[in-house]
Amino acid sequence: MTLFEKHRKTLEEAISASRKRTYFSPYPESPKAYPEDLDGKAKVWMSRIMNSNYDCLKQGEPESWIGEEVSPFLQVGIGVRYPVYSVSKLIYNSGNAQKQWSNINVEQRTGILIESLSRISLRFFDIAYATMHCAGQSFMMSFQASGPHANDRALEAIAMGYEELTRFPKEAEWIKPFGKFDLKLHKDWKAIGKGTGLVIGCSTFPVWNTVPGLYATLITGNSCIVKPHPKAVLPIAIVIEEIQQTLLESGLDPNIVQLAVDSSASPITKQLAEAPSVKMIDFTGSSEFGNYIEHLPKVTFTEKAGVNSIILDSVTDLKAVLGNIAFSASLYSGQMCTAPQNIFVSKNGVTTSEGVVSYDNFVQGLATAINGLVDNPKAGPGTIGAIQSEATLGRTKGISASGGQVALASRSIKNEEFVDARIATPVVISLDKSQSDLYGNECFGPIVYVIKTDGLDDSIAIARSLAEHKGALTCGAYTTSESATKKIAAEMNSAFVPVSFNFTGAAFINSHAAFSDFHLTGGNPAGNASFTNPEFVTKRFVWVGNRYMA
Amino acid sequence: MTLFEKHRKTLEEAISASRKRTYFSPYPESPKAYPEDLDGKAKVWMSRIMNSNYDCLKQGEPESWIGEEVSPFLQVGIGVRYPVYSVSKLIYNSGNAQKQWSNINVEQRTGILIESLSRISLRFFDIAYATMHCAGQSFMMSFQASGPHANDRALEAIAMGYEELTRFPKEAEWIKPFGKFDLKLHKDWKAIGKGTGLVIGCSTFPVWNTVPGLYATLITGNSCIVKPHPKAVLPIAIVIEEIQQTLLESGLDPNIVQLAVDSSASPITKQLAEAPSVKMIDFTGSSEFGNYIEHLPKVTFTEKAGVNSIILDSVTDLKAVLGNIAFSASLYSGQMCTAPQNIFVSKNGVTTSEGVVSYDNFVQGLATAINGLVDNPKAGPGTIGAIQSEATLGRTKGISASGGQVALASRSIKNEEFVDARIATPVVISLDKSQSDLYGNECFGPIVYVIKTDGLDDSIAIARSLAEHKGALTCGAYTTSESATKKIAAEMNSAFVPVSFNFTGAAFINSHAAFSDFHLTGGNPAGNASFTNPEFVTKRFVWVGNRYMA
Repeated sequence: MTLFEKHRKTLEEAISASRKRTYFSPYPESPKAYPEDLDGKAKVWMSRIMNSNYDCLKQGEPESWIGEEVSPFLQVGIGVRYPVYSVSKLIYNSGNAQKQWSNINVEQRTGILIESLSRISLRFFDIAYATMHCAGQSFMMSFQASGPHANDRALEAIAMGYEELTRFPKEAEWIKPFGKFDLKLHKDWKAIGKGTGLVIGCSTFPVWNTVPGLYATLITGNSCIVKPHPKAVLPIAIVIEEIQQTLLESGLDPNIVQLAVDSSASPITKQLAEAPSVKMIDFTGSSEFGNYIEHLPKVTFTEKAGVNSIILDSVTDLKAVLGNIAFSASLYSGQMCTAPQNIFVSKNGVTTSEGVVSYDNFVQGLATAINGLVDNPKAGPGTIGAIQSEATLGRTKGISASGGQVALASRSIKNEEFVDARIATPVVISLDKSQSDLYGNECFGPIVYVIKTDGLDDSIAIARSLAEHKGALTCGAYTTSESATKKIAAEMNSAFVPVSFNFTGAAFINSHAAFSDFHLTGGNPAGNASFTNPEFVTKRFVWVGNRYMA
Repeated sequence: MTLFEKHRKTLEEAISASRKRTYFSPYPESPKAYPEDLDGKAKVWMSRIMNSNYDCLKQGEPESWIGEEVSPFLQVGIGVRYPVYSVSKLIYNSGNAQKQWSNINVEQRTGILIESLSRISLRFFDIAYATMHCAGQSFMMSFQASGPHANDRALEAIAMGYEELTRFPKEAEWIKPFGKFDLKLHKDWKAIGKGTGLVIGCSTFPVWNTVPGLYATLITGNSCIVKPHPKAVLPIAIVIEEIQQTLLESGLDPNIVQLAVDSSASPITKQLAEAPSVKMIDFTGSSEFGNYIEHLPKVTFTEKAGVNSIILDSVTDLKAVLGNIAFSASLYSGQMCTAPQNIFVSKNGVTTSEGVVSYDNFVQGLATAINGLVDNPKAGPGTIGAIQSEATLGRTKGISASGGQVALASRSIKNEEFVDARIATPVVISLDKSQSDLYGNECFGPIVYVIKTDGLDDSIAIARSLAEHKGALTCGAYTTSESATKKIAAEMNSAFVPVSFNFTGAAFINSHAAFSDFHLTGGNPAGNASFTNPEFVTKRFVWVGNRYMA
């Protein structure tokens, strides 16, 4: 049985879900769904890999070994060193490998890539601990985001790629009637990869934000170089190791995907990005670098900074709403690209089923809800995780002094398991709508602004304008009015921002489900990519057709 | 019956053909297929429109009237003047109109746009005479290229747009099982146009190269401003008049599509292109201007200059081959983007069924075949048409002095109908492979180089390298060898150039059939667009989804 046949059912289900936008997740998100011994083995693996060379890659003899990851939970360097290769060697090897890979047909590529996801799924626990100790996500979030949710997104890219690559026939007879005779031509078509792809990772979601571009690049017949953030290498190194192993077992050049590690002091990203044979670039990170990437004469897919809003109008159960917002703002200490930053509330307060709640009482209620969450020893530490970088910690601590009224100060809480963890609970600051110098930019980290506006229309107008000019990935809205629902949807959608209405309970605006929710729309300054719309794969290859006279 | 219902069958056939890549042409290419009186009426219409104001557009009161078209057949100005509007007014009106148009659902847009094609088909004769007297195409070519073939391409764009815009469901229920409970979300999705599109036309194919971008822009919910070449306005003005009329009859703002006319002395193209609300640009023209367009921070679709090659290896019937190449090189005096310029022949000659024909004899044979075609009074004038611009005429006349051995000089022939026509028959120049300073760039017009190479591999290598660095839209190849076929296909395809093998008889490399042949691949410097691959429509709109808690 070929790998394609082995995984055909998974592929077909993925294509079907992607078309219907219904729930689908072939990789269970509960750690309990996996073999019992994996967790224990992963803990052993993690302690063994620390302070050693990561020598599991198949890219040949390195020039040297480097690594600078620091665990946000331990606040010590984890000491893993990765092989270093010159940019010219990486580019050269990628070009060679691409020739081989592009001659493999789409069914073979599909089989190999889904097989690699199966292998990766057996390392979800390793990846989880690796993610914790570079990104600072809690164990559960590390497991889910870097494991099954990332695999889902990778499979989504493979499925969309397969659909598009097989969209047109391999060959056809074209017959044009000329009255007295027919002109007959035999034609064939090929989808040809553009060359080498570069995927530039970020420090907070080193796997989840990397694999969509990585798998989209590979399925469409390109080779790929992955350049992770120097502070977040380990989890994606495991992914690459497993893909290389799968390639090797299929008799292929493992350099079809390569890990390119650099240091904060001597970055190689621009060198890689500007290499002529690099035809497409996936990037997650700052707007400044993202804008540089977008202006290169290449195909680019970016996810940059954004300012996400929640618009408050009217609710039935305010407590449920406050709890939901508190969780969204606290999850991974607001270090998600989908986390809410700005909460717009009318100066006239919020209508609830028990009457109007004043602006001030709303702000206080939110502070109370956040305190209730983070001070709950069973929920708090696992929700907020740790702060990935010193910069984010500094920003969070300093924000109170920058203006506005602090409704809730950021502080530390105790994490029993990791007493040295870098921790900061969300800070809540009340602002007037005039203070857009503060709320008008992304303040990455556990920072929440509640902004007092003149009313619903004002809230919508500000949120829309911010999305248009600064970008946004998500928008939450709470309203019991049908006309307000329509207006919020129309206005925010026209800035190409999706809206989540009246989320409570287990629904959070932070979560974008593979096969159903497009992550980013690509239509506002938060980024030009969208996981996974058809463009996300079609821009990576070229249709070429030949014609033959009979 | 709605317009969508009226045209549903045409739409479905178009989608089916586009998927299967089989022959389909809903608008017959023979003038005889249309009502008998249309030709006579068109002649009257054409003589009436000359030296008058084109007052059939619905864009409101103009600031002034301008026009500078010169008939290549009459070599006098045709005197048609078009309404002039300020760039700011065009942009403002387009933005307003787009709001209305984007709220029309995709079925309505589809119905209206196919209806406009029906209306346009009743004006094919008007469009044909208009095209003749600005582009210099013969009547038959003007009729077919600006009429049915252009309509086919427009319908192809509508069909691809409809497919992509309806690809995902309008709404779905998403249910995630959490063991003890299900999380249920209602979701909906919309495909939202990016804003205003600009389509920049060229002087040689004022309709054919404009309508794919125009209709792709419109079907995806954008408004469109068409900026034709100032020397080739009349045929596309008719198209816009008919679309505006269709919009009006549907109760819509005719400014959804606007004609923007400028003069060679005071061009407005850059002003339009750089307007912030212009989100996408379709361009056909020079590489220099095309590169400027591609570097704007917008979605762009370009067709620029290219150098098309024919590779000669072995043939069965040399006479048939020479006749075919002679026709391809002579058709519309080589002013087609798909016309061959460089013919690569081994110094060892061409293998034929009757033995090897030497390089020199091949060159002589080609010259003879071209003479035979252009000197045939029944075929010659109708094949070569007229030279669109003085610049092309000058280039053709001057090329003999630039180097190489002239095997056939360019000259004039008699056109009985238009004794003052600007005419130049193809010039054939024999070059050595070392003279790439001559053959290594596009020499637009009836200019054919035959280049002596060291053999087949050499021919392929040069043709491939040229395509990679200068771009190419087509490549012809003649070989009876299976291995050579595979090699030529692989090498040229890797430069993203399609190859046409062994074309004789009624098959010409110049012709790209809608629904079957992608026109341009988008993968080499000849342009980044491809008519009509999925990207050609998907880049013009954004998918946005909302989520609702039950």
